[in-house]
Amino acid sequence: MSELVELYAEYGDCLDEGDLERWVDLFTEDASYRLTSRENHDLGLPLALVRCEGRAGLRDRAMAIGRTAVFRPRRMRHLIGAPRVVAGADDDTIASRATFAVFETIEGEETRVFLTGRSFDRVVREGGRLRFRERVCVFDASLVPGSIVYPL
Amino acid sequence: MSELVELYAEYGDCLDEGDLERWVDLFTEDASYRLTSRENHDLGLPLALVRCEGRAGLRDRAMAIGRTAVFRPRRMRHLIGAPRVVAGADDDTIASRATFAVFETIEGEETRVFLTGRSFDRVVREGGRLRFRERVCVFDASLVPGSIVYPL
Amino acid sequence: MSELVELYAEYGDCLDEGDLERWVDLFTEDASYRLTSRENHDLGLPLALVRCEGRAGLRDRAMAIGRTAVFRPRRMRHLIGAPRVVAGADDDTIASRATFAVFETIEGEETRVFLTGRSFDRVVREGGRLRFRERVCVFDASLVPGSIVYPL
Repeated sequence: MSELVELYAEYGDCLDEGDLERWVDLFTEDASYRLTSRENHDLGLPLALVRCEGRAGLRDRAMAIGRTAVFRPRRMRHLIGAPRVVAGADDDTIASRATFAVFETIEGEETRVFLTGRSFDRVVREGGRLRFRERVCVFDASLVPGSIVYPL
Repeated sequence: MSELVELYAEYGDCLDEGDLERWVDLFTEDASYRLTSRENHDLGLPLALVRCEGRAGLRDRAMAIGRTAVFRPRRMRHLIGAPRVVAGADDDTIASRATFAVFETIEGEETRVFLTGRSFDRVVREGGRLRFRERVCVFDASLVPGSIVYPL
Repeated sequence: MSELVELYAEYGDCLDEGDLERWVDLFTEDASYRLTSRENHDLGLPLALVRCEGRAGLRDRAMAIGRTAVFRPRRMRHLIGAPRVVAGADDDTIASRATFAVFETIEGEETRVFLTGRSFDRVVREGGRLRFRERVCVFDASLVPGSIVYPL
């Protein structure tokens, strides 16, 4: 399996297993992360539901999630399509895109679709492995179900 | 990533992004496309919900969709499993199959499963890239939800 | 496509097409199969909803399913993420994990999410091809919907 496919698979695993420290480690030190709706993205609006700058920003987000008291825990499950390498990336950066579906299982309920969408990513080799320098997750719905915003 | 995997990923992208001109271009000039239910397929019935012959037929279908006035727009999202190359294809043609799940997001609603199924495809190299010469999409449900039939 | 990816894709196909004989053949003679909830798995509980030892055990399970009279047939559809090879496997065994989503279509109804989860697998080369020596399927929900337990 290619290293790029492996990066995406590991990324989904980290979020699904709640291993947010390892999730942060999949980004470069200066990475930027953005989560936005397709509507905002298509209109070119700068609005984002989540925006993190650098690993410090990602770590803050991870800690905020860890501190949130939750009445009924929910489990997420990512399914990620084959990443497509987009032409036009320079030598050091891979510009890639991948389709995702995220499913949610709230304790005692049946599993359901949480969100689907597509990510627009820039990946670089840093510290001996591929990491995200930029990740923009664009979900198809207008709203994220539920009140706590997990990263995708 | 292999060229075949890339073809399927691009195919899903074209439909999800509504880029139907690019979608037509992923077929050969003499391609045939069919969309049918699993029930019909298993019974060997020639019935198909959609049938297009050649790029001209595909283009007609794409234009028909573009002209349809829609009250509430819906967005589709394809997730496509690893394509399997089936033994028995001749030298020039790749016979492959892939599982798919298509999700639908109607404006203002939550994302839900639209259809799942499997495609039976014949892929050839033409004009410097892989293209579908035949694509038969077999969905698991008896009916397609909604009134407009998008290709899968 | 790598042989490991192909194994997973074929595995899903066998179950989706109801070809349970071919499904059994994807395991080694001494294979063990277990289906359990994430809750049990995370707590380290030995409880399993399904447990099969050896191909004989898998064949028994397949036959039990074949004999079950069903009022309204349901069709399953597996979507399997890229398998991740986990470090630490010895020379002969591949330890891999893969995310899955299984969809269900009951006759006359719309397709819905059945279960999502992750499998923890040990794969070996036997008889000229890769086969599962161990497969532990861990689903995210607490319960499996419906009354008949199909393997995942």
